[in-house]
Amino acid sequence: MLSDNDFNFMRHALELAARAAEAGEVPVGAVVVHDNQVIAEAYNERETRPSALAHAEILALERATEKLGRWRLSGCTLYVTLEPCVMCAGALVQARVDRVVYGATDPKGGAVESLYQVLADSRLNHRPDVKAGVLAPECGTLLSDFFKRRRLIAE
Amino acid sequence: MLSDNDFNFMRHALELAARAAEAGEVPVGAVVVHDNQVIAEAYNERETRPSALAHAEILALERATEKLGRWRLSGCTLYVTLEPCVMCAGALVQARVDRVVYGATDPKGGAVESLYQVLADSRLNHRPDVKAGVLAPECGTLLSDFFKRRRLIAE
Repeated sequence: MLSDNDFNFMRHALELAARAAEAGEVPVGAVVVHDNQVIAEAYNERETRPSALAHAEILALERATEKLGRWRLSGCTLYVTLEPCVMCAGALVQARVDRVVYGATDPKGGAVESLYQVLADSRLNHRPDVKAGVLAPECGTLLSDFFKRRRLIAE
Repeated sequence: MLSDNDFNFMRHALELAARAAEAGEVPVGAVVVHDNQVIAEAYNERETRPSALAHAEILALERATEKLGRWRLSGCTLYVTLEPCVMCAGALVQARVDRVVYGATDPKGGAVESLYQVLADSRLNHRPDVKAGVLAPECGTLLSDFFKRRRLIAE
């Protein structure tokens, strides 16, 4: 079930994604919410760091973990503008996040509904609740505009 | 194909796993090798940090990335004593590691041969070479001894 807050938190993640685009990064943003408060925010920083692990979700989980001082992120919801990849879906299970809300689907790399359904796998030791498609058009447009601009620059 | 070096590097990972056990952590160790040199080593630090992301593989990939100053870990082999989980298998793909060598299989959480075959997935944008079962008995015994001791303490 979705609340107004879910849309507000996703808008926050979208703002972070826009900042990634400004930095020349594939625009994906994420926030972690605990007790209805944003406790961590991040955007994709793969090129900036540089690190292949610096996806928005991983950085947001790291910051939420530091904030709460525990590895179990129970009581937390992660909002992210794009369907998590295999690495990030696995990290969400490892961190025992209660709930995952995302925007656009990622047919080429998504591991929640597209290529795998990691968060629904009863063989793993945790299954977060999932809500997909929140502000999906806005999240998707940000990505497709970014790639369009990048192709124009490359030509 | 396996070389003497593969066994030596796995022995190095085993020593790191033993240090994890001494620290009260599930004993998994990992090293990253580039140009036949260990450029990063790590062991599981989930409880110590605490962070659900602090698996041996993730920490070793982070350190190798810092060392090389690039997000692509092409030219690198990761050695790890236990079959990587979903998160770590996804991270190995993201980081474009050339080769992954591991010891014991993890029937409950492994994502290379057990629950998933992430590193062999042609839909993803990278497929590392994989060698499984190197020093598997030693790697497995370290883990089973750790859990036996922990159960004895808990009783």
